[in-house]
Amino acid sequence: MAIGKDFSELLFKIGYSFSDQSYLENALTHASYSNEYRSKGLNLPSNERLEFLGDAVLQIVISEYLYDNFKEFNEGNLTVMRQKLVCERTLAKVAESISLGDYIHLGRGEEGDCRKRPKILANTLEALIGAIFLDCRERNSEEYKEVISSLMKYEFSSAVCFTKHDYKTLLQKLVEKDGSAVLEYRVIDESGPDHKKSYTVVAMVNNNEVGKGVAAKKRDAEMAAAKMALELFGYKDV
Amino acid sequence: MAIGKDFSELLFKIGYSFSDQSYLENALTHASYSNEYRSKGLNLPSNERLEFLGDAVLQIVISEYLYDNFKEFNEGNLTVMRQKLVCERTLAKVAESISLGDYIHLGRGEEGDCRKRPKILANTLEALIGAIFLDCRERNSEEYKEVISSLMKYEFSSAVCFTKHDYKTLLQKLVEKDGSAVLEYRVIDESGPDHKKSYTVVAMVNNNEVGKGVAAKKRDAEMAAAKMALELFGYKDV
Repeated sequence: MAIGKDFSELLFKIGYSFSDQSYLENALTHASYSNEYRSKGLNLPSNERLEFLGDAVLQIVISEYLYDNFKEFNEGNLTVMRQKLVCERTLAKVAESISLGDYIHLGRGEEGDCRKRPKILANTLEALIGAIFLDCRERNSEEYKEVISSLMKYEFSSAVCFTKHDYKTLLQKLVEKDGSAVLEYRVIDESGPDHKKSYTVVAMVNNNEVGKGVAAKKRDAEMAAAKMALELFGYKDV
Repeated sequence: MAIGKDFSELLFKIGYSFSDQSYLENALTHASYSNEYRSKGLNLPSNERLEFLGDAVLQIVISEYLYDNFKEFNEGNLTVMRQKLVCERTLAKVAESISLGDYIHLGRGEEGDCRKRPKILANTLEALIGAIFLDCRERNSEEYKEVISSLMKYEFSSAVCFTKHDYKTLLQKLVEKDGSAVLEYRVIDESGPDHKKSYTVVAMVNNNEVGKGVAAKKRDAEMAAAKMALELFGYKDV
């Protein structure tokens, strides 16, 4: 992996063309590579400062997108979606979709499986986003917003599904906000023959019933109970 | 506190004039006030969605400012500064400096000391920032960046001092990243008469010495030891 590599395929996948390619080179320079250079007395900045910036760029682009496109979602829903979108796992997935790992400049000691490591992939994606932001800024352009939204488009859809349907996770996150609160589900009734079971489950927060659900599967009954609890807590449109 | 209040003094302090004042009204509407309206069958959205957006706007404005103005700071320093700038305590202080509490629309049950509560002040400031961002966006303007930087200017200076000099806090934060690591300081030598003491302190992470400092005061020796440890961990320019 050498500086000056052909990035055309990567740039095609991102859908962006740099005015100043040095931003791209910087974004792809892992600290291990930079350190190797330093030990030879050469200065090649790592992508860590760009990662710092890119993290915030990603936050605002995603937040603005969610704010504009999910007007019926309240702050709780939006926050859950944002968390899912900016987490290491999601970013690593997006990085993989553009084979970003193949382009990272790593130190020799870090070669091998390192370029598949989720943390390295996610951090490099953030650095790349920071690089695109700075390159756009020089042209007084907001193109970075479209580029990022396009990179994240599949993740946006899955975050919506997640928020819309995973009531248990949403309720858990809500309860976690109050450090001392405990959420649990209890089967209070189980009836019918094996092939036609019916479970009644209650969701309890600190031993207070906050929702109840009935379904043929225990998990579905729990989900229904969580949904009722979310509605009780004022979460609409879940 | 009624909708339609005179905001001229607040706007003067912020140094911003809204094209669409409804953003400002929305930013100042606490959920408790909104709920009171709802119970009367009226719809007055709370500022929570704006707070969600404003949080990200603040992050990018601060990150861009730090990235541009502290070129010698590495990602670790920048992250510590950003954390300090966006924490509830700092935001509440900024909110107090513009007497934001006086303008918040609160429900009756929340009156009294509520408008002095750091959490409410910080959240309302974030909502206000979100409102300024949206108002600017309609005019295709980036004025919000200057407005926010100006609001935060004293905090920027104190964050720099903090980062430059509070080596112990910086080291503590670094060590905390590894959940299981333990940082402690040990006086390994104390010599000289009372009026001319000399302390030698070592900083230990998981019982390994990572830095040593000598000074006339124990705290200064600890700071010197922390500084050495930070350098050992690759933190330059601290």
